[in-house]
Amino acid sequence: MRIRGSWRDCHPRSGNTKSIVLFDPAVPPRLSFLVFSYSLTSLLLPLFVNCLPSRVQRFIVQRLQEELKAKPGSLPFDEILYCNIGNPQSLGQLPITFFREVLALCDHPAILDKAEAQGLFSADSIKRAWQILDQIPGRATGAYSHSQGIKGLRDTIAAGIEARDGFPANPNDLFLTDGASPAVHMMMQLLIGSEKDGLLCPIPQYPLYSASIALHGGSLVPYYLDEETGWGLEVSELKKQLKEARSKGITVKALVVINPGNPTGQVLAEENQRAIVEFCKQEGLVLLADEVYQENVYVPEKKFHSFKKVARSMGYGDNDLCLVSFQSVSKGYHGECGKRGGYMEVTGFSPEVREQIYKLASVNLCSNISGQILASLVMSPPKVGDESYESYSAEKDGILKSLARRAKTLEDAFKSLEGITCNKAEGAMYLFPRIKLPEKAIKAAEAAKTAPDLFYCRRLLNATGVVVVPGSGFGQVPGTWHFRCTILPQEDKIPAIVSRLTAFHKSFMDEYRN
Amino acid sequence: MRIRGSWRDCHPRSGNTKSIVLFDPAVPPRLSFLVFSYSLTSLLLPLFVNCLPSRVQRFIVQRLQEELKAKPGSLPFDEILYCNIGNPQSLGQLPITFFREVLALCDHPAILDKAEAQGLFSADSIKRAWQILDQIPGRATGAYSHSQGIKGLRDTIAAGIEARDGFPANPNDLFLTDGASPAVHMMMQLLIGSEKDGLLCPIPQYPLYSASIALHGGSLVPYYLDEETGWGLEVSELKKQLKEARSKGITVKALVVINPGNPTGQVLAEENQRAIVEFCKQEGLVLLADEVYQENVYVPEKKFHSFKKVARSMGYGDNDLCLVSFQSVSKGYHGECGKRGGYMEVTGFSPEVREQIYKLASVNLCSNISGQILASLVMSPPKVGDESYESYSAEKDGILKSLARRAKTLEDAFKSLEGITCNKAEGAMYLFPRIKLPEKAIKAAEAAKTAPDLFYCRRLLNATGVVVVPGSGFGQVPGTWHFRCTILPQEDKIPAIVSRLTAFHKSFMDEYRN
Repeated sequence: MRIRGSWRDCHPRSGNTKSIVLFDPAVPPRLSFLVFSYSLTSLLLPLFVNCLPSRVQRFIVQRLQEELKAKPGSLPFDEILYCNIGNPQSLGQLPITFFREVLALCDHPAILDKAEAQGLFSADSIKRAWQILDQIPGRATGAYSHSQGIKGLRDTIAAGIEARDGFPANPNDLFLTDGASPAVHMMMQLLIGSEKDGLLCPIPQYPLYSASIALHGGSLVPYYLDEETGWGLEVSELKKQLKEARSKGITVKALVVINPGNPTGQVLAEENQRAIVEFCKQEGLVLLADEVYQENVYVPEKKFHSFKKVARSMGYGDNDLCLVSFQSVSKGYHGECGKRGGYMEVTGFSPEVREQIYKLASVNLCSNISGQILASLVMSPPKVGDESYESYSAEKDGILKSLARRAKTLEDAFKSLEGITCNKAEGAMYLFPRIKLPEKAIKAAEAAKTAPDLFYCRRLLNATGVVVVPGSGFGQVPGTWHFRCTILPQEDKIPAIVSRLTAFHKSFMDEYRN
Repeated sequence: MRIRGSWRDCHPRSGNTKSIVLFDPAVPPRLSFLVFSYSLTSLLLPLFVNCLPSRVQRFIVQRLQEELKAKPGSLPFDEILYCNIGNPQSLGQLPITFFREVLALCDHPAILDKAEAQGLFSADSIKRAWQILDQIPGRATGAYSHSQGIKGLRDTIAAGIEARDGFPANPNDLFLTDGASPAVHMMMQLLIGSEKDGLLCPIPQYPLYSASIALHGGSLVPYYLDEETGWGLEVSELKKQLKEARSKGITVKALVVINPGNPTGQVLAEENQRAIVEFCKQEGLVLLADEVYQENVYVPEKKFHSFKKVARSMGYGDNDLCLVSFQSVSKGYHGECGKRGGYMEVTGFSPEVREQIYKLASVNLCSNISGQILASLVMSPPKVGDESYESYSAEKDGILKSLARRAKTLEDAFKSLEGITCNKAEGAMYLFPRIKLPEKAIKAAEAAKTAPDLFYCRRLLNATGVVVVPGSGFGQVPGTWHFRCTILPQEDKIPAIVSRLTAFHKSFMDEYRN
């Protein structure tokens, strides 16, 4: 329980709240009583959501950038290679043309009727823009929408979910949000009333969940993914952790599953998903299914199945299971992170609870309309016969196939290195290799007052300009060390990443080999 | 203290937390322990942010809409007239062409180079789109940005603030957000550590503040605006309430000022603002300045002054005052509510505190890029000499002048009615008339178990289709009754609103006159 223990200690209401004086001592003393109780946020550092490097690492990256600019040739590398954030377009991935055509037309509908528009936009993007405008009350793309999102767009998304799953979806179950993160926070706010309320979360894990649980004052109940079996999610482990948490007086409210996994990249087998659904039903847990990487599957032997489809195929309906599925426009093949679009599909909740979710959604009025439109496009892309279908498919397949190649190349490279093991990236956008660090390196890290994985990642950054995120940002079995490496740098950068990493790793091991 | 008392009782951690069982009794008993502690949200109803009608009122509006559609002519009116939400484009206001041109071009930059684009877009919108793209790293409008917002856009906004105020603005002090609401929530999260932390808030007040304080578990310390002096904000009242709160053990952290006022429409005089700044400095309070209506001033004798300008003109700098100014693209003459753009300018805070705000901002990664771009456009619109300047100015002036006329017409209409007094809408988008309800009407409301102002508003809705928000949604001096009426319905609808309201009010008074 070391991990939960340390997270619990971080809880702002657990008694170790530190307050800090806002001003320097030099400032007049009457201001000194102005004390901020921001400990709740200052304690988030180890859980940092953005998977940005820590503050120190940010400064290092910035300093390196400045040095590269000011004194080209002064560093052992000529550019910084970002393998730290799931932000595809920041690395040169182009947006899907059809999606952007429709967005542009919805932003400026005045041009829809003009002849020149037909030279600039595909016929089906013009048609789709009209359809979308007709779904928006008063065609007002600049108005607040219903706090759940525009009803017509929810209809489109529900139809997309039905087409994906083969089971009905209700537009009233959909809450459109500015990306998946606000949706997750909303559910946490709803589920957590005190630190006695717990959520089962995977370790390793995208730290959105730990951060949100800490912010809302609940308890993270960890379950470990099994690295040996390709980051397997074992129900026996869930049961063990649930029992242990209950024995400590924690009311476990929900189970978080990230599928495909982040940072671990595994895609759950349908059989495994059935067991998870059964577990949630038996134990009365809300199943929070993070399915934002549903389009990112790279291996032919695996396929994405939504948890809702799995539950429905088991004959379980609204009365059997509370299930929330999170989806985002930021991931997939499109990677539209900056548009901040997404939704959650909320099933099995009573109308009264849904009314509460609605109220929480309304606290920020509504999500942005461009993001809402994009979410509808992602769930209803061009179809066979549409003018854009071929170019759309070519763009989509090009990206997904390239990601699969990048994943394989990086995986193979990691596996070839001394002391590194690496599971396959079956899906998502990441590899999470494990490094067996020599005792001498661990001692050097301790001497530098740094976690060993951070020590390795920082050395890597300084030597090669390659930025990865240490495993301690995601949680890992104590005594093991990992880092997360995205598969997102453009394909022509991959050889440089591989060769720099390989050279660095060899020299690092030579330096510290026992 | 009745008002604060009742809000305090709503605090989810104050002991009156109710939990509810999620499922119907009909559902298998093993699920019945699945208890949601969502009291924190269920208690928000009276503070409802959206200024949407309450759930019941929403159902009434929906039923009326359906009846109008199914049986035209069956109701005493032929359309519903929405005077409840500050959502201009939902009522037919058109977006500013230049803003939308630039947004469309940034959404689909591939067309920027094409000849047809010059027939569809103004030359300066094309130029501006290029400028903006060059400000975005990698020209990637689909990438997560820095969690504070894209640096180049912050530079533009800072320059706009400097031009407005005549004092420097630092782009690193700006946090771009999905509208002003998330920015307010962020500051509340930072300022509130326990229910002993209080914020001075105006009554009446846009209920974002009361809702956010309740959500974050703090205490609302009310100060009353003086209706007699045109909703004056008296420092003597601030001092009185601060003293009283402190005597109860509340640590008052901040003062919220909404200028121009919502729902009250007043514009503060500069002299008054100076006194408020002095008060905050003396008492060591953070000044949270809601300045989202800064473009909406309708009377020649008043002018908007930002609190930062006022503080700087008094010689007060970063060491004297912690000041946050909230701005939004949703208001102003543009009313781009659905775009969810805005920013806060955070000055006077130490680097450590700013780092905490940055972390909070990063919890949702970044605000949407279209909203960020729009915020930069709003703070840097076309200038004299730009191709779009004339059409832009004509659109802007047309909207603002029309709003001023609507405000005056509605104000005059209200003032002509028996028992109604109404302050001028000097700014913002609202009138907040006071109704002296006859004793008999109050008794009838009590018999119907409804607040008297809600009783009046519901009768108005059922009789005329005019939707307004009861004053109890904003707070009011106990025993007084108001409603908020927007000035946003298009100008050709105003006569119908006036005549329906007038006829209804006469018959209501006839029915209930003592």
